[in-house]
Amino acid sequence: MTKVLIVYASDYGNTKKMAEMVASGVESVPDAEGVLKEPEEVTEDEMTSSDAVMVGTPTHMGSPHWRVKQFIDTICSPLWIKDGMIGKVGAVFATGSGFGYAGGGCELAMLALLSNFAEMGMFLVPLPKNTPGFKFGGLQWGPYGRSSGENMEQTGVSEEKLEATKYHGANVARTAAALKAASIFP
Amino acid sequence: MTKVLIVYASDYGNTKKMAEMVASGVESVPDAEGVLKEPEEVTEDEMTSSDAVMVGTPTHMGSPHWRVKQFIDTICSPLWIKDGMIGKVGAVFATGSGFGYAGGGCELAMLALLSNFAEMGMFLVPLPKNTPGFKFGGLQWGPYGRSSGENMEQTGVSEEKLEATKYHGANVARTAAALKAASIFP
Amino acid sequence: MTKVLIVYASDYGNTKKMAEMVASGVESVPDAEGVLKEPEEVTEDEMTSSDAVMVGTPTHMGSPHWRVKQFIDTICSPLWIKDGMIGKVGAVFATGSGFGYAGGGCELAMLALLSNFAEMGMFLVPLPKNTPGFKFGGLQWGPYGRSSGENMEQTGVSEEKLEATKYHGANVARTAAALKAASIFP
Amino acid sequence: MTKVLIVYASDYGNTKKMAEMVASGVESVPDAEGVLKEPEEVTEDEMTSSDAVMVGTPTHMGSPHWRVKQFIDTICSPLWIKDGMIGKVGAVFATGSGFGYAGGGCELAMLALLSNFAEMGMFLVPLPKNTPGFKFGGLQWGPYGRSSGENMEQTGVSEEKLEATKYHGANVARTAAALKAASIFP
Repeated sequence: MTKVLIVYASDYGNTKKMAEMVASGVESVPDAEGVLKEPEEVTEDEMTSSDAVMVGTPTHMGSPHWRVKQFIDTICSPLWIKDGMIGKVGAVFATGSGFGYAGGGCELAMLALLSNFAEMGMFLVPLPKNTPGFKFGGLQWGPYGRSSGENMEQTGVSEEKLEATKYHGANVARTAAALKAASIFP
Repeated sequence: MTKVLIVYASDYGNTKKMAEMVASGVESVPDAEGVLKEPEEVTEDEMTSSDAVMVGTPTHMGSPHWRVKQFIDTICSPLWIKDGMIGKVGAVFATGSGFGYAGGGCELAMLALLSNFAEMGMFLVPLPKNTPGFKFGGLQWGPYGRSSGENMEQTGVSEEKLEATKYHGANVARTAAALKAASIFP
Repeated sequence: MTKVLIVYASDYGNTKKMAEMVASGVESVPDAEGVLKEPEEVTEDEMTSSDAVMVGTPTHMGSPHWRVKQFIDTICSPLWIKDGMIGKVGAVFATGSGFGYAGGGCELAMLALLSNFAEMGMFLVPLPKNTPGFKFGGLQWGPYGRSSGENMEQTGVSEEKLEATKYHGANVARTAAALKAASIFP
Repeated sequence: MTKVLIVYASDYGNTKKMAEMVASGVESVPDAEGVLKEPEEVTEDEMTSSDAVMVGTPTHMGSPHWRVKQFIDTICSPLWIKDGMIGKVGAVFATGSGFGYAGGGCELAMLALLSNFAEMGMFLVPLPKNTPGFKFGGLQWGPYGRSSGENMEQTGVSEEKLEATKYHGANVARTAAALKAASIFP
């Protein structure tokens, strides 16, 4: 069984919806299980018993939600010290509701999360541009669900915008399965 | 007279159009002059005689056009060694034609340019979100002109998408005028 | 009077020491006042009554301390919505205690803070490489105080490593004074 | 046979020395081959016939050498359009000779290279902190060889600083072998 832990914070339910789409992608892969948690619910054991971790966040001022950052500082940082996550797989997703035609700051927000995974010695899974739905919500670092319209009014994230998200979950589950069988780091 | 040097590389004319819009913004400010140059045309003297430098680039694989990078390595790097640009003003703009609802990688491309300015000890001018036209092509780091449609087909950059660009040019000219009168760095 | 608000979180006192050095730099400038606050103490009024804001953080997994991020989400984000900080000045500083010869992730941590300032429409002040002390703790984005030795053992931040920090505070105070007299953004 | 293509540009021979160390790490893995190329020597065929690509660069003003960027724009960008590299493995290394205790801008330089790989849909291999030699030249994104002393005088990169580099090459070869057998992306 390949276990993929999906940690998310959500302001208005959009990132939650995206996290559920990630989970459905994970579970579309044979012998893969997706576990959804809010940041405060995650324990070190939950992390070390997973083969992959995916983190999703709204974009707040160009970086992750503070609740996600608190999870990183309090749960991930001690695991970094202990080398507890080396060789597992990491991936990210994000939403955003600021003015958005230029991404609204999602790239640095995603890189902050990927930095956390890289620090822990985890492989990073990108989102290839030929992923179905990429054009409606894809960035190379992961899927992005824009939840507002031209004037920052809340519109929610449509199914169309989240199509790539489901594929991302499945890709991560397959990557974790392939790498857990190998022994990469000395 | 406040001199703003505008350096740009253009693939299909979109970044050039944007650079011209920047220049028109600069020249809307009393006693300000905008000078447009392609990367290969810029000399060290052109740089040191300017009060501000703005650099524009298409987004190529999430970073600037190699011709812009060549300008940075060959013209800016020696000026960095000599501390030749400290206290001047820097700002950026970009275009992009990949799949774009998540910014298409423009944020890191702009940050690469801003890093160059920061290395040279130059003040950085952001793009405030209340700038007219921000919603059609604004990022906090500067204006972004998306030049393609949903399927990456070339559409060019519309006037609407470039409105914020003109304001950016004017903002930079005013900032350079205010700071050249002061003596900030010891 | 030029007011510079200095917001910091500190794990072991190193970032606090750095914040105090920033404040001494601010106060070395005539008619400039430095106000030190921990993240939870800052109000929106404190922000809007300041001419410049400097934020300092330890580097945690390549991004800012979650308490700093909480301040950004709860205090800065509402001010961003209201366009309440446009035209003020922003600058950053950081400490780090991971393995450090390659910066230990401080660059993205600083950029997360600068992103917050840019979103709010604030000018960014770099750290020029000719700043006294730059070689012991300077990055283009601001001063960095490494607080540990080769094996991540806590050593604290020495005066030598913090020399550039004091200059950074003074530079920011002078920049804020020069720009508050001008009217840059339309 | 697992083929790892190692592309590097070098100013004074330090990045070249690092690239050779990477290659020796690759070849320490059974059935793995490392191929060293300067940017201008790489063809699209060379890329598509490789299982992993590693790119190394000096840090120039906080971003990669322009010759590396030219390779990205002219060789990688067309492969991105064609989806020609999806599912392969990417990793990076860098040198730097500016003032360096805060990394000298290597982080954004490495991220520019990783962005290129992510755009092409390639898995990213981090450098775990328990890698031998990490403390002398490791960043989460890859190994970093500082080639100058406190006053930016050229010192070259020592064996000690490059120890982690050799491990990085071996890690990448093993990752590519594990993933080429799998079929991750739909």
